[in-house]
Amino acid sequence: MSELRQDPTTKLWVILAPERAKRPQQGPTGRRADQLPNWDASCPFCPGNEDKTPPEAFRLPADESLPWEVRVVPNRFSALSPEGDVARSEDGRFFRKMNGFGIHEVIIEGPVHNATLALMTYEQVERVMIAYQERYNILKRNEQIRYITIFKNHGWASGTSLIHPHSQLVATPIIAPYYHRKFDIAHEYYSDMGRCLYCDLLAAEQEKGERIVAETERFVVLHPYASRVPYETWIVPKTHSSSFGLYPTIFLGELARVLKNALLCLYRELGDPAFNLTIDTSTTADEKDPYYHWHIRIVPRTTTIAGFEIGSGIYISAALPENTADHIRKRTVGLVKDGDITLKGKARPPQIKKSGTAPS
Amino acid sequence: MSELRQDPTTKLWVILAPERAKRPQQGPTGRRADQLPNWDASCPFCPGNEDKTPPEAFRLPADESLPWEVRVVPNRFSALSPEGDVARSEDGRFFRKMNGFGIHEVIIEGPVHNATLALMTYEQVERVMIAYQERYNILKRNEQIRYITIFKNHGWASGTSLIHPHSQLVATPIIAPYYHRKFDIAHEYYSDMGRCLYCDLLAAEQEKGERIVAETERFVVLHPYASRVPYETWIVPKTHSSSFGLYPTIFLGELARVLKNALLCLYRELGDPAFNLTIDTSTTADEKDPYYHWHIRIVPRTTTIAGFEIGSGIYISAALPENTADHIRKRTVGLVKDGDITLKGKARPPQIKKSGTAPS
Repeated sequence: MSELRQDPTTKLWVILAPERAKRPQQGPTGRRADQLPNWDASCPFCPGNEDKTPPEAFRLPADESLPWEVRVVPNRFSALSPEGDVARSEDGRFFRKMNGFGIHEVIIEGPVHNATLALMTYEQVERVMIAYQERYNILKRNEQIRYITIFKNHGWASGTSLIHPHSQLVATPIIAPYYHRKFDIAHEYYSDMGRCLYCDLLAAEQEKGERIVAETERFVVLHPYASRVPYETWIVPKTHSSSFGLYPTIFLGELARVLKNALLCLYRELGDPAFNLTIDTSTTADEKDPYYHWHIRIVPRTTTIAGFEIGSGIYISAALPENTADHIRKRTVGLVKDGDITLKGKARPPQIKKSGTAPS
Repeated sequence: MSELRQDPTTKLWVILAPERAKRPQQGPTGRRADQLPNWDASCPFCPGNEDKTPPEAFRLPADESLPWEVRVVPNRFSALSPEGDVARSEDGRFFRKMNGFGIHEVIIEGPVHNATLALMTYEQVERVMIAYQERYNILKRNEQIRYITIFKNHGWASGTSLIHPHSQLVATPIIAPYYHRKFDIAHEYYSDMGRCLYCDLLAAEQEKGERIVAETERFVVLHPYASRVPYETWIVPKTHSSSFGLYPTIFLGELARVLKNALLCLYRELGDPAFNLTIDTSTTADEKDPYYHWHIRIVPRTTTIAGFEIGSGIYISAALPENTADHIRKRTVGLVKDGDITLKGKARPPQIKKSGTAPS
């Protein structure tokens, strides 16, 4: 079983999971997904290979006589184990740890091996959003769980080890430091102002307009003021909503359109870039709080995170978000209200743009 | 001029430096440094090309009639500018920024294009340490500077853009969040216990022994309890010392031996891995404080930092530090007191060991 350990000098937790060293790795292909086969006999996520994964926890459609469109399965090389308790133990004053309790699942985004969210149908992306929300709402009932991270690694440089399109969910008994920080800051703002930080920030961004990429009835897509990397993209619901789990399922269709199109813009602008996507949401205990506001964060990985960033936590980015947002806007005719989009010009093969951001 | 912006949702600062997009990039060669030429006509850091860098700020030996062994020059593609003030400005309530004031220098570690610290002579590594300390002590006199990060990116996966061995120094008017956190925790421990956290931690690690890789008269090399990546390595001075700048220069020779050998162990064990190295030291204002304790942190980059780590701040590592420390110890006869080392077996070409740590 893996274990969680706390660094006594930073109070940050790490997950030590030696068993993950055994998981299979598909090397970088140097090819875009659409240049790969649409089915791969050796891929554990391809139809026909269902027995290579643990039994599924969820599927769409629910009717098992129909082929699956989305499957959720426990991660075979899980960093965490669903068994065990969360009692912490100390070996002397400094060496604090707990069992690697938690849940680690894989959301297989579709049956097609070389598909990618940016190019899928709206209906398929909506199924993925429904699967995210469904698993979130089931797993939050476990009282040992305090936070659920839903994320996606796309492309080799993002740290993914498998090509077949998939997302992941990690449910932990600890709240990650990055989120702790965000909650504290949002809570302090609410204490001061009596309003949600994100609602106010969204209003300020809408007034400025220069970092907004697109807007639909219920969502805003923007490049944040202090973007850590060029083309960092946030998707924020317009009305106050603390938890992705409690966001009305009926609106996930619009979210799917907005997300697919935000990814399609990056796909065309940067040439199918590697990226990480996370859903930043409240803790499972605070889903109805008035101060936090869930949103999707997309971080393209066109440059390497270097020593200065790792050492200090300060990112150096080689682009201004006003400019990157402008580049995206210039290539689109605009999102219509339901999240549809029209791109200018013909579809052309994406070009990788290299831009260095890491220190020399 | 670049600018520093604060994210209103995390209070983290980023450096936005569009001019850095122009800096040259040498692509990955897929070869170890020792398979590359020892001089490259197009390399700005090679002897004969001194006019391709800004005028040098420091050199060793000081006697200019002798060829240089170590050179320090301003970074030509600096993320920060040494001119301007550090006044912060606000555009509305949310958009806080300041000029990109700061100093960004490059420490060229030697004249040989394909050299690497792990294989350099002790004398050469000592010169590099002296250059680090000298520049640190000169730059800390600037009262607008609050923190100086000395770091090194080695190998393509570390984010470096040039092959020629070099380190960097970034002096900023802000304290990076990672260090802020470390200072706060060390300060709290001192308030509680009246002793330095790191001195006590070192004693606890020495008592355990299992994560210690080597020990000399003045330094301990260890794999930390909550290692974020396999083979993360710390070098910690045994006697209390808050600032690298105030550490006795006379002991930098021993530090050089210890560092070179720690890197040599990683070079042989992991096959010349990419790594990031940082010197974690006190703020420039608190160099004599009783609670912090400088140390060197080496983070091998044998795996990609993936979405979960970026999203949450929690790292997943596929190895236990007790085991990695044991691997290193088994391959060495042991460090003798002055930092020298004897490796077991013949020198053999290093083998890249791939081990996945990022979530699936």
